[in-house]
Amino acid sequence: MSRPWNVGLIGTGFMGRAHTNAYRQVSQFFEGTWRPVLRAVCARNRDNAQAFAERWGFDEFETDWRALVCRDDIDAVDICTPNHLHHDIAIAAAEEGKAVLCEKPLAMNCMEGEAMCRAIERAKVPNLVWYNYRFVPAVTLAHQLVASGRLGQVFHYRAVFLQDWTISPDVPQGGAGTWRLDAASAGSGVTGDLLAHCIDTALWLNGPIQDVSAVTKTFVSQRKHVQTGQLQDVAIDDACAFLCRFQNGSLGVFESTRYARGHKALYTLEINGQHASIAWDLHDLHRLKYFEHRDESVVRGWRSVHVSDGDQPFMSHWWVPGLQIGYEHTFIHQLAEFLRSLDSGTEFHPNFRDALETQKVCDAVLASGQERDWKAVE
Amino acid sequence: MSRPWNVGLIGTGFMGRAHTNAYRQVSQFFEGTWRPVLRAVCARNRDNAQAFAERWGFDEFETDWRALVCRDDIDAVDICTPNHLHHDIAIAAAEEGKAVLCEKPLAMNCMEGEAMCRAIERAKVPNLVWYNYRFVPAVTLAHQLVASGRLGQVFHYRAVFLQDWTISPDVPQGGAGTWRLDAASAGSGVTGDLLAHCIDTALWLNGPIQDVSAVTKTFVSQRKHVQTGQLQDVAIDDACAFLCRFQNGSLGVFESTRYARGHKALYTLEINGQHASIAWDLHDLHRLKYFEHRDESVVRGWRSVHVSDGDQPFMSHWWVPGLQIGYEHTFIHQLAEFLRSLDSGTEFHPNFRDALETQKVCDAVLASGQERDWKAVE
Amino acid sequence: MSRPWNVGLIGTGFMGRAHTNAYRQVSQFFEGTWRPVLRAVCARNRDNAQAFAERWGFDEFETDWRALVCRDDIDAVDICTPNHLHHDIAIAAAEEGKAVLCEKPLAMNCMEGEAMCRAIERAKVPNLVWYNYRFVPAVTLAHQLVASGRLGQVFHYRAVFLQDWTISPDVPQGGAGTWRLDAASAGSGVTGDLLAHCIDTALWLNGPIQDVSAVTKTFVSQRKHVQTGQLQDVAIDDACAFLCRFQNGSLGVFESTRYARGHKALYTLEINGQHASIAWDLHDLHRLKYFEHRDESVVRGWRSVHVSDGDQPFMSHWWVPGLQIGYEHTFIHQLAEFLRSLDSGTEFHPNFRDALETQKVCDAVLASGQERDWKAVE
Amino acid sequence: MSRPWNVGLIGTGFMGRAHTNAYRQVSQFFEGTWRPVLRAVCARNRDNAQAFAERWGFDEFETDWRALVCRDDIDAVDICTPNHLHHDIAIAAAEEGKAVLCEKPLAMNCMEGEAMCRAIERAKVPNLVWYNYRFVPAVTLAHQLVASGRLGQVFHYRAVFLQDWTISPDVPQGGAGTWRLDAASAGSGVTGDLLAHCIDTALWLNGPIQDVSAVTKTFVSQRKHVQTGQLQDVAIDDACAFLCRFQNGSLGVFESTRYARGHKALYTLEINGQHASIAWDLHDLHRLKYFEHRDESVVRGWRSVHVSDGDQPFMSHWWVPGLQIGYEHTFIHQLAEFLRSLDSGTEFHPNFRDALETQKVCDAVLASGQERDWKAVE
Repeated sequence: MSRPWNVGLIGTGFMGRAHTNAYRQVSQFFEGTWRPVLRAVCARNRDNAQAFAERWGFDEFETDWRALVCRDDIDAVDICTPNHLHHDIAIAAAEEGKAVLCEKPLAMNCMEGEAMCRAIERAKVPNLVWYNYRFVPAVTLAHQLVASGRLGQVFHYRAVFLQDWTISPDVPQGGAGTWRLDAASAGSGVTGDLLAHCIDTALWLNGPIQDVSAVTKTFVSQRKHVQTGQLQDVAIDDACAFLCRFQNGSLGVFESTRYARGHKALYTLEINGQHASIAWDLHDLHRLKYFEHRDESVVRGWRSVHVSDGDQPFMSHWWVPGLQIGYEHTFIHQLAEFLRSLDSGTEFHPNFRDALETQKVCDAVLASGQERDWKAVE
Repeated sequence: MSRPWNVGLIGTGFMGRAHTNAYRQVSQFFEGTWRPVLRAVCARNRDNAQAFAERWGFDEFETDWRALVCRDDIDAVDICTPNHLHHDIAIAAAEEGKAVLCEKPLAMNCMEGEAMCRAIERAKVPNLVWYNYRFVPAVTLAHQLVASGRLGQVFHYRAVFLQDWTISPDVPQGGAGTWRLDAASAGSGVTGDLLAHCIDTALWLNGPIQDVSAVTKTFVSQRKHVQTGQLQDVAIDDACAFLCRFQNGSLGVFESTRYARGHKALYTLEINGQHASIAWDLHDLHRLKYFEHRDESVVRGWRSVHVSDGDQPFMSHWWVPGLQIGYEHTFIHQLAEFLRSLDSGTEFHPNFRDALETQKVCDAVLASGQERDWKAVE
Repeated sequence: MSRPWNVGLIGTGFMGRAHTNAYRQVSQFFEGTWRPVLRAVCARNRDNAQAFAERWGFDEFETDWRALVCRDDIDAVDICTPNHLHHDIAIAAAEEGKAVLCEKPLAMNCMEGEAMCRAIERAKVPNLVWYNYRFVPAVTLAHQLVASGRLGQVFHYRAVFLQDWTISPDVPQGGAGTWRLDAASAGSGVTGDLLAHCIDTALWLNGPIQDVSAVTKTFVSQRKHVQTGQLQDVAIDDACAFLCRFQNGSLGVFESTRYARGHKALYTLEINGQHASIAWDLHDLHRLKYFEHRDESVVRGWRSVHVSDGDQPFMSHWWVPGLQIGYEHTFIHQLAEFLRSLDSGTEFHPNFRDALETQKVCDAVLASGQERDWKAVE
Repeated sequence: MSRPWNVGLIGTGFMGRAHTNAYRQVSQFFEGTWRPVLRAVCARNRDNAQAFAERWGFDEFETDWRALVCRDDIDAVDICTPNHLHHDIAIAAAEEGKAVLCEKPLAMNCMEGEAMCRAIERAKVPNLVWYNYRFVPAVTLAHQLVASGRLGQVFHYRAVFLQDWTISPDVPQGGAGTWRLDAASAGSGVTGDLLAHCIDTALWLNGPIQDVSAVTKTFVSQRKHVQTGQLQDVAIDDACAFLCRFQNGSLGVFESTRYARGHKALYTLEINGQHASIAWDLHDLHRLKYFEHRDESVVRGWRSVHVSDGDQPFMSHWWVPGLQIGYEHTFIHQLAEFLRSLDSGTEFHPNFRDALETQKVCDAVLASGQERDWKAVE
């Protein structure tokens, strides 16, 4: 029999919806000891909080996150707020002994992230950061392939995350859907929002990054701020690209932007090894491209693998071969693995400490972009 | 405030899961008057019924479908059984005044289908057949494009549904996952299972079919029957292809098989008009291919449309542009539309009568394959 | 040292250019005993003939094909005329003891084709029909793969040849570029022009066809005739699709049209076997798609093979891996193979007899389309 | 009537073949005043020179390039040697008043390149550098689209050139096919060989580059030298990636390697503008990808344009729509344009001065890679 695991969720935006969906879905598709219960949700606006609670089936709602993290009837706190609140909430929740599940990026910067890790580790609470793309079945499969050693020596890693939704100068900063353009809420622009995903996956698939050389650019220098109604300087990076060297001797090239006309959310990655190469693309997330040099030469070619069979990661829990799943399932998979780790007592990844490693690369990238120099990842 | 709509579901296989998921998900993602309540589920095996009820959150369970359809606390009966039971259950449910939602194909043949339609229409109950692929956003978009008239005169329609899961002669017939190979349960092979989908979409997109010429083939003539343990003749069609003429003057070519190595569930369709063409592929269901001849000639080409924006069908209910949904969402969309029709009193499609039209084509195809002659669709 | 092989070419249209290019190119890229010499070209219009001879480097020109075939200084006659002249020229050339290279389709119908084969065989002259797509490296590779037996039992063969250049009713019939719409010159429409290619490849890859069921359609019933300036009935098939059964037990589906908006010359083929499948597409002719079921299951997928390596058919004669060749090279390859057969004394394929087999299928298809009945291929 | 234009070619390797093919083919496919005559070819090895002359139809051969450049019967000198000879030959040929056609990269470095440009300009001779990829019809079309202004402000340019042929440490340096791994012959590795192509196209499509930050890597540090038979240090860059800023405010990311398993010669480029984006891929060189944001939103998507119609660049000279051309045609197009410029007296591009601009970027990239610092392009 399953046991209830009471969740308090803070933030009712896009991520609030995506995480809540995962809590509602996981127990039908994955066996496990723990069954999430939607105990309470928190939003600053009372109407929002109430409506969200009703729609998604939370028992109760709060309007002050400090009230939520103190509730005795909560086992876990899920942080879906803008980035500038992660630090305070996470530390408070940890100090209350709650499991902490934090949306990425971990923090506004490494200094915050270090403090958060220390609090989490002092409290010894289960913790997770929602780098959900690790849990795309195709990406998990990529990790298994790399871990099997079949690539041999790795020479190259490249990743891009390209969007085009902020090209118009009429897009404001600082609102409900646009806080990601406001440095005060987001910390950085595409680096923390998009490259952070690319970096997390890269560290997972290809190990630590030694040093980076970056270029950043803000194409639209002023945007109206939703809260003030005034044109204000844009302090985030609209685009960021960087070169890097991995500890394993391979070279990396990363690029991210919100000005790549034609790409809605094109996160692609590719890893080239001595014997095999792997590529993946978020726009067709259910496919993995695989090249195996040991194939017979005349019929050697990139394989387009439709990751929808029962022997591929997570897919035995879903439908039948050939039928794809979507974006939201990544959260369900991550949650299922996290719940399993609670049960087994094994350490879950990606956790706060993993996310801090990504934060370090992000900070080095931003510093390099600003100072136009190679920066070591400390 | 939403009002409860009590569902009784019969059958706990693949479709039982897919439909139940839709009932659980629809109200979080689509506003509406009616909120499905999982009142009771029915399976012949008591343990299965109970386990399914627990896992998916049905209040109660039954082991006799006749008991379920008579329950006063049920507003709707959803039929997820093998095909040979559709007829009796649907008629009984209609006579009880229940809304009837029936998995496709409608029936074992047109004679059964006619009786079912008569019962439904006599009882004047809301009704639906789960031709879910109409509700893939890309397919709905295709329908909107055709309906807008922008294709001009249509010349060609082609569709295939290719699988490869029965190539091994060791696959049995007549079991839980393999009743589709047993003519006694399934009525036909790929014609009712796969071509029925292609035909339903074709009738929706391109109008009535006049006549057909088909070829059918059974590649493995004997398979072990799960119930008897004996090798028995296989009486279904392993593969079926047909030519046809549509009433609008266009030609159609359809093919389906479970022996197309390399294709898990490749349902593709293409429609060629005077001014524009459209193509779609279930293996990448979130994309629509569109060719517009009125584009400037030097940059004219097939467009690969990532159907994930808020102005594309159903997508405003999900995530953000660039993030794909999956197979299961088609059932949620179909259900949302059905619930909306309950509210508005408009006729829902595809209903039993629509599915009978598809059944008529299937019957003509099977007859043509057997008699090796063109057959009119009556 | 190479020895001259004197060519007389009849017809200066598209195929005249493509064949002449092959004669000019073959000796630089393929070693061999025989070196083609462009001895004479023939066109009815004197200016055309002269201009073509000058541009392409023919020594002389003729305006009467009967004069050309009688010339003592000609070793081979290449027939690039509209179809209705193939019969007379081929027989005359054979009777003069010339090697005969005839553009496809072989003839207006089987009766003509039979007579041509008899003449050729009576004269024992080397002969070739320009079914050039066999000599696309990817298609030749497909043939090698099939011949190696690695597909196992074949279940399905499908091919389409889709164009869109005659959709406008303003396209005339009977002119220089449009004789293919005039039944008097072309014999048939898409069947002889496009399906003939599909059939030739199919017979080569998958063996004889037993019987066919076809549908044909003429979408534009009257077009202006270039010679008369009058609207005249269109007697060719604008579109044709057929089902067939191969002798090896597999099913075939073929379709061709000039009304498929968006496809310029989309010739695709696919063959599904027990263990492997192969697909190819003329629009990207340098790629072969290959699916190998014996690949490890989690990384199994269609391989996109870039056929440009030295160990792939014909490619050692060209550039370096990754650099594609084009359409015209198919003629060079076919010619190189033909010249090699002259040298070695082995029988060349496809020859007149092979092309007659394709003609038989075409005739059965057209008869089936007309009579709406299955027709055996005699 | 056409007038002869006598060519002397130096070097009989891959490029010697590709250029010669262009001289042989151009006059059949492109009208023009000047008709290339293959007057003499030069190779150090007498047998090679003679065999090449015979195979390709050169009237005569030489074994000393100094003898060739002095011949009175030569109008143009084409330099197909390894890079370290470009400088001396080009200057000598210019001083003899010959037109000079030089294989890329222009020189071993900018200093050489400057001297070459001065000699060329002093002699006022027609000149060309074989940056042939500008003459892929799809790339020329891309240039036309950019030049039309329809992209609006450009934000991003990215290009890669990925190969995998030197992964094995058994590949030697310094031989006929492997001089590109020997710094003494090649000057640099992938930078001059591959990135030079990417840079030339980028400068053409997107204007000057201001500054660069690069990383270079030599994965295999020692290889056997063909001439000495000894293991020697490898002094070229096996891989090189760089970031850059263009004068128009856009960001660039470039990467090149010979260690990208699975890519034979994958040169891709993409340019993102405010209103439209363009992408191209050498592995399918006959296609252009085009995204037009002004398309109706629900059917907006990347268009795959099959560049094979008569209104697309160069294609009216070839076959019919849908039939692709290949790699070698780029040289024919470039030559046709060059011959046309001789006739019209207009300046041809890319010429020596254009190639020097590319050389400057290459030098800055290599310096940046070595010194790990941003470098301005002087």
